[in-house]
Amino acid sequence: MNPVVVTDIARADAATTGALGVHGVATVHEAMGRTGLVGPGIRPIQDGVRVAGTAVTVLSWPGDNLMIHAAIEQCREGDLLVVATTSPSSDGAFGDLFATALQARGVRGLVTATGVRDVADLRAMGFPVWSSAVHAQGTVKATPGSVNVPVVVAGATVRPGDVVVADDDGVVVVPRERAAEVLAAADARVAKEEADRAAYASGAELSLDRKGLRPLLADLGVEYLTQAQHEARNAGLDAGRGTER
Amino acid sequence: MNPVVVTDIARADAATTGALGVHGVATVHEAMGRTGLVGPGIRPIQDGVRVAGTAVTVLSWPGDNLMIHAAIEQCREGDLLVVATTSPSSDGAFGDLFATALQARGVRGLVTATGVRDVADLRAMGFPVWSSAVHAQGTVKATPGSVNVPVVVAGATVRPGDVVVADDDGVVVVPRERAAEVLAAADARVAKEEADRAAYASGAELSLDRKGLRPLLADLGVEYLTQAQHEARNAGLDAGRGTER
Amino acid sequence: MNPVVVTDIARADAATTGALGVHGVATVHEAMGRTGLVGPGIRPIQDGVRVAGTAVTVLSWPGDNLMIHAAIEQCREGDLLVVATTSPSSDGAFGDLFATALQARGVRGLVTATGVRDVADLRAMGFPVWSSAVHAQGTVKATPGSVNVPVVVAGATVRPGDVVVADDDGVVVVPRERAAEVLAAADARVAKEEADRAAYASGAELSLDRKGLRPLLADLGVEYLTQAQHEARNAGLDAGRGTER
Amino acid sequence: MNPVVVTDIARADAATTGALGVHGVATVHEAMGRTGLVGPGIRPIQDGVRVAGTAVTVLSWPGDNLMIHAAIEQCREGDLLVVATTSPSSDGAFGDLFATALQARGVRGLVTATGVRDVADLRAMGFPVWSSAVHAQGTVKATPGSVNVPVVVAGATVRPGDVVVADDDGVVVVPRERAAEVLAAADARVAKEEADRAAYASGAELSLDRKGLRPLLADLGVEYLTQAQHEARNAGLDAGRGTER
Amino acid sequence: MNPVVVTDIARADAATTGALGVHGVATVHEAMGRTGLVGPGIRPIQDGVRVAGTAVTVLSWPGDNLMIHAAIEQCREGDLLVVATTSPSSDGAFGDLFATALQARGVRGLVTATGVRDVADLRAMGFPVWSSAVHAQGTVKATPGSVNVPVVVAGATVRPGDVVVADDDGVVVVPRERAAEVLAAADARVAKEEADRAAYASGAELSLDRKGLRPLLADLGVEYLTQAQHEARNAGLDAGRGTER
Amino acid sequence: MNPVVVTDIARADAATTGALGVHGVATVHEAMGRTGLVGPGIRPIQDGVRVAGTAVTVLSWPGDNLMIHAAIEQCREGDLLVVATTSPSSDGAFGDLFATALQARGVRGLVTATGVRDVADLRAMGFPVWSSAVHAQGTVKATPGSVNVPVVVAGATVRPGDVVVADDDGVVVVPRERAAEVLAAADARVAKEEADRAAYASGAELSLDRKGLRPLLADLGVEYLTQAQHEARNAGLDAGRGTER
Repeated sequence: MNPVVVTDIARADAATTGALGVHGVATVHEAMGRTGLVGPGIRPIQDGVRVAGTAVTVLSWPGDNLMIHAAIEQCREGDLLVVATTSPSSDGAFGDLFATALQARGVRGLVTATGVRDVADLRAMGFPVWSSAVHAQGTVKATPGSVNVPVVVAGATVRPGDVVVADDDGVVVVPRERAAEVLAAADARVAKEEADRAAYASGAELSLDRKGLRPLLADLGVEYLTQAQHEARNAGLDAGRGTER
Repeated sequence: MNPVVVTDIARADAATTGALGVHGVATVHEAMGRTGLVGPGIRPIQDGVRVAGTAVTVLSWPGDNLMIHAAIEQCREGDLLVVATTSPSSDGAFGDLFATALQARGVRGLVTATGVRDVADLRAMGFPVWSSAVHAQGTVKATPGSVNVPVVVAGATVRPGDVVVADDDGVVVVPRERAAEVLAAADARVAKEEADRAAYASGAELSLDRKGLRPLLADLGVEYLTQAQHEARNAGLDAGRGTER
Repeated sequence: MNPVVVTDIARADAATTGALGVHGVATVHEAMGRTGLVGPGIRPIQDGVRVAGTAVTVLSWPGDNLMIHAAIEQCREGDLLVVATTSPSSDGAFGDLFATALQARGVRGLVTATGVRDVADLRAMGFPVWSSAVHAQGTVKATPGSVNVPVVVAGATVRPGDVVVADDDGVVVVPRERAAEVLAAADARVAKEEADRAAYASGAELSLDRKGLRPLLADLGVEYLTQAQHEARNAGLDAGRGTER
Repeated sequence: MNPVVVTDIARADAATTGALGVHGVATVHEAMGRTGLVGPGIRPIQDGVRVAGTAVTVLSWPGDNLMIHAAIEQCREGDLLVVATTSPSSDGAFGDLFATALQARGVRGLVTATGVRDVADLRAMGFPVWSSAVHAQGTVKATPGSVNVPVVVAGATVRPGDVVVADDDGVVVVPRERAAEVLAAADARVAKEEADRAAYASGAELSLDRKGLRPLLADLGVEYLTQAQHEARNAGLDAGRGTER
Repeated sequence: MNPVVVTDIARADAATTGALGVHGVATVHEAMGRTGLVGPGIRPIQDGVRVAGTAVTVLSWPGDNLMIHAAIEQCREGDLLVVATTSPSSDGAFGDLFATALQARGVRGLVTATGVRDVADLRAMGFPVWSSAVHAQGTVKATPGSVNVPVVVAGATVRPGDVVVADDDGVVVVPRERAAEVLAAADARVAKEEADRAAYASGAELSLDRKGLRPLLADLGVEYLTQAQHEARNAGLDAGRGTER
Repeated sequence: MNPVVVTDIARADAATTGALGVHGVATVHEAMGRTGLVGPGIRPIQDGVRVAGTAVTVLSWPGDNLMIHAAIEQCREGDLLVVATTSPSSDGAFGDLFATALQARGVRGLVTATGVRDVADLRAMGFPVWSSAVHAQGTVKATPGSVNVPVVVAGATVRPGDVVVADDDGVVVVPRERAAEVLAAADARVAKEEADRAAYASGAELSLDRKGLRPLLADLGVEYLTQAQHEARNAGLDAGRGTER
C-alpha cells in the first residue's frame, strides 16, 4: 500500500447529493436497507445542522495531519472531508485554520475519526464537524498517508465521491452508484411516515394496529395479564422479580 | 420468564409524583438516603428540562423495538416510558414517531438504555429523552419481550408505577410505596440547603465551620503546613512530589 | 504520604494568568511545545466559556468530598479549583453549594476528575466546570486527603499555583515558573496564525505551499495519481480496496 | 435505607445448589429462559473453575471494605460472597487475607463488582474470584453499608440466599425460589444438547436441517446465489461492497 | 441490501494460506505495508495458537445467530469463520455445538465481533476463537442477515475467500488476490529480522547503529545531556518536571 | 520542552530495589501510604512473574518507536523500561527484537502505556511485559521524543531511576529517594499480615474482632437484624427492595 494522492475522482451527482441532504440520516439509513451508518462514537460538535457532501477521504497516521494539508487541494465546492487514521487517535488533528481553507473552497463540513480543536471558532464560523473527540492535542507533519482511497470510519466504509449525510443523529454514507436509488427510496419513506405521524398525533390509531402487530405478539407467545394475574402467577416467588436488566 | 404485557398497573400518586418533579434529581437521591440513581451513562439529549412521571417499563431484545409498540397502549397521562434491553444496545430503537404517539397520550418523556434517533425532531417537539447513545441504527420487530415487568437500567431497578425523576443531572427512581416519605425528606432538605446557600453566598461562613468539620480533619490526622514547612519536611525527597493521581 | 493542607502557596502572577486566559487552550498548549494538556475525558458542562486561574489542588478519596470543604478556605480571588481522586470516581462530589461558596471568594471555576451535579444551577450561576461526568451521586465526609499537593488529572500534573486555562477545547496546565515564557510564545503564535488565516480565507494560498510541504510529500514517497491511473495499478486486485481503517 | 447486617438468611437448598454447579453458566442461563446473567465486564481471575454457592451479599461504599469484614461472620459452608458498591469502583477491596478467612469457613468463592488484589496468592490458594478488575489499590474502613440486602451486580439482581453459578463463561444468578425448577430445565437441556453434539460431530446432519431452519430463511427472504450471480446483480455497483460492518 | 447466502466463493490458494499461517500476525501485517489488522478489541480465548484459513463471512443482527447456522454449510476444510453484526453486540452467539459442527468440516477457527460462550469446552476441543467478549448470553434465530458478503470487523474489511491469520497478537486479513505477494514479502522480512535478532542478542550492535538512527535523532533536534546538565538547564523551574504524560 | 536523552541518571540502590521486588505490588503500595500505583488498565501479558527494576523512561509520539531505540543504549543491568506516549496509543510499539536487545543488557522487563506485539515470543523468552493492549500495529521512526524525563503512565508519575515493582496485580512506582524507607515499611507490614493470616486460616478469630471493628459499625449506625425483622420493617414496601446497585 504505497501512499498516494488520488486526483480527479468521480463524484456523486451534486443535485442528488443535495436532495439526500434534505432527508435526515435516519431516513437515508432506512432507505438503504439499514446499512451505511457510521458508529455512534462519531458525534457532532454543534446542534441543529444537517449537511450532505461528496467525500474526499484522508488516511493519516495517528498524531499527524500532513495528509489533511494534501487533501485540501483535492476538495471543491460541495465536498465533505472524511478523515480516518491507521490507529485510533483522539488528537486534535483539525482546527479553525483548516476550516478556513475548506470554507473558502466551498467544502460543507468534516467527519473525522480523530479529535478536533478550536471548537468555539468552528461553531462561530458555521463549519460543521462530526468527530470522535474534542481535544487540543497538536499533531505533526512527518509520516505519509493517502488521499482519496477507501477508508473505514467507525465501522463504515467511505469511498471517494460517495455521498456523506450528517446531522444531529450522526453520519451515513451512500455509495455514489446508489445515490439516485436511495434518494427515491427515502422520498417514498418520508411520504409513508408523514401519514403515520398524522395517525399517531391525533391518537386515532396505535402502531400496534396500524402495523398489524397484534397477531405477531400472539404468535410470539406474549401474554396479556393484569398486574393481579401476574402477581398471582409469580406467588411463592419474589413478586415481580421476573425478567430483568 | 415468559413474555408478558402487564396491564392495569398500580401507579404512584400523581400529585406526589408532580411534587417530586419540582425537586431535582440530586435532591431526591439524597432524600432517599443516596439510593435510586441510574448510572451516569444515561444522559439527556436536551438541556434545561426537569420531569417526573410514573414508569411504564419495557424489556426488549437488542436491535428490536416490538415491545415499545406494545407499551404505548399501556401508557397514560403522567407516565414516563422506561426501556431496557436484555443485552447492551446503542441502536436507535426510538424516534419521533413513537414520541408523537406518546405525546398524544400525555406521556412525559423517555428514559432508555438504548440509543435514540431523530433527536432534532425530539428537541423541537419538546419530548424529553434520556438515553445511552444517539444513533440512527434502525431496529426490527421480531423477538418477544415484556411490558411492565421490573427492569434494571444502568444499575437501577425500575418497577412499573415507580416515580422516575429526570433532569440535567440524570435520572433517579423512587419506589412508588416510598414516594410520599421521600417527598417529605426532599422538602426538608431543600429548606436546609436554602439556609446553607445564603450563608455561603455572603461569604459569612465556611462549610468547614457550618458543618463542624474542623475537629474531623484533626481526628483524621490532616495537618496544616505552610508551603515552606511542607517543602522542608520533604527535603531530601523530590520537592512537592508528594501524593499523586 | 500523610494528609496535609498546604497554606500560603506561591501562585503564578495574576496579570500573566489573565493574559494566558485570553488565548485558547490550543494556543497555550502549542506555545508550551505541545505539553500540559489534560486528557479529552475532562469536558466542560457549558459552551462558550474561557477562563484562567491559579490552581488550588485537592486530592480526595473516591466518594468523599471532605477535602473540598477544606480547600475552599485556601482559595482566593483568581484561583481555580482542581480536584483529583486516589481512584477513578464519577460521583457528583461537587454541586451548587460549593460553587456558591467559591464564587463568593472570587474563584474562577472548577476542573475535576470526578463527576459534578446541580449542573443546571451551575450553568445558571455562571460558574464554569470541567469534569469527567455529570452524576447526582452523593458523597461522604469520612476519609482524609490533601489540599495543595501536586496531583495528576487525566494524565496531566497540576501543582498548586500553576496556571490552569480552560475553554471549549478542554484544559491545559502551565507551570507557574514558565507562565511568562509561555505567554510570550502564545502571543507570537497568535500573530503568525492571524497571517495564515488571512491567506487561507481568501483562498490565495494553500497550506501545502505556505508551509512548504510539497517537497516533504515527495520525500516521503507520496505519489499523485489520477483515479484512472490508480485503478489501473490496482487492476487484478479488488479496485479501490487499497489502504483502510 | 439505613445500613443493616441481615442475619439468619434463608438459603437455596444445598443439594440443588451443588447440582446447578455441575451445569455451566450458559446452560443455567438458557434453562432460566435466558435471564439472570451478570454482564460480561465481570471476569474470572483463573481458568477452568466452575463453582456454585448461595449468595451472601455486600453493599459497600467505593474505596471502602468495612462491610466485607462484617460479611465474613455471616458466611457459612457452601456460600459464595457477592460484593457490589454504591458507585463504580475498580479498587482492590479484596485480597488473600479475606480469602483465607472465607476459605476457613467453607466459602466457595467471590463475585465482586470491585477490583481484587493478591491474585497470584488467590490462584495458588485455589480460591476462585470473578471481578471487574485486578488492581492493588488499597481501601479504607470508614463508611457504612449493608450485608445481605439485594444488590445489582453488572445489571443482575442478586438477593441473599440465591444460587450463584460461576465458571469461565461468567456468572449467573438463580433466585432461590426457582432453583429446583431451573435445575430440572437444565438437566433436560443437557440431554438435548448431547444428542445435537453427536449429530454435528459426525457431520451427519447440519443444524439448518436438525432445527428446521431452511423454511425460516426462505420466509425471511434470504436468497442463495452463487458468487457469479451475486456479482452480476451488483454490476454497475462496486462489486461486493454489499452490506457491511 | 437484500439478505443473501453467497455460495461457491473463490478462495485464496490453500498452500499460500498455510504458508502465511506459519508467519505471525505481526510479520504479515508488516509485509502488507502495515495494513489489514483487526483492531485490538478482538482477543483470543486461548494462548499459544496460530492459525490461517480462508474466510467464510457472516453478517448477523445483534442477539441473533441464525446466519451462523446458514454459514456452516458454506464452510469447508481450511476455512475460518468470520462473524460481524450490524450493531455492536457482546452476546455469546457462538458456543461448543457450532464448534463441533465446524470442526467436523475441517474449519480452522472463529473470528467474531460478538461474544462467545462455552469457552472451557472450546479450549478443551482445541477449536481456536478470537472474539470481542466472553459472555453466556443466548441468542435467537429471528432476523435475516447474509453469508459471504464483505464485512467490517473492528475496523478491518474481510471479504469471502480472503486469508485470515490469527495468533496471540490478534488477527490480520490478507486480500486473496494479494496472498502470494504478501507471502513473499513476509518471507523476506523474516530473513532480515533473523539477522537483526542475532546482532541484538549478542549485544554486538545497537539498533540505533544497525538502523542508522543517530543522524535522524540529531536532525530532529534530540539533544544528549547528562542528568546534571539537564537539571542545570531547568534550574529555576521545578527540576525534572519537563515533558509528561 | 525540547527533546532530550538524559544520560548518567541516578538510580535507586540495587539491593534495595531487589528487596522491594520480593514484596508484591500490593504490599509496596500499602507501605507507601497507598500511593504510587499505575492504573488498572496496564496489565501483564504473562502470569506468575514478579520483578523490580530501576526506571529508564521513554516519552514517545503515538505510532512512533524511535525513542525506544534511543533508550536501549541508556539501559543497564537491573533497569526496567517504562514507555509513555504524548497521546493514548494502543499500537504495538514494542516486540521481540527490542526484548532481545534489552535482555542482552540485563533489563528486567517493560511497562508501557502502548500496546505490544510478538507476545508469544516474549512469553517464551521470559521477558515480562505490562502493557495497555496487545496489538500487532507497526510503528514508524519519524518524530522526536525524550528519554529519562519524568513521565505519567496511567495516572502515576515515573521519574528516571525510580524503583518500579510489577507482578500479577499490576505496577507500583517507588521514588528512588524513598526506597529504603518504603522497604522497611513493607517488611513490617508483611510480618503483621503473617500473624493475621494465621489467625484467619484457623478460623480462630474474625477480622471484625482482630481489628476491633465492631464499635465502629455501631458508631456508624449499622444495625443487626434477622431476615424476619428486616422484612417486617420493610412491610408495606416491596420486601427486600432496600438498597441496591
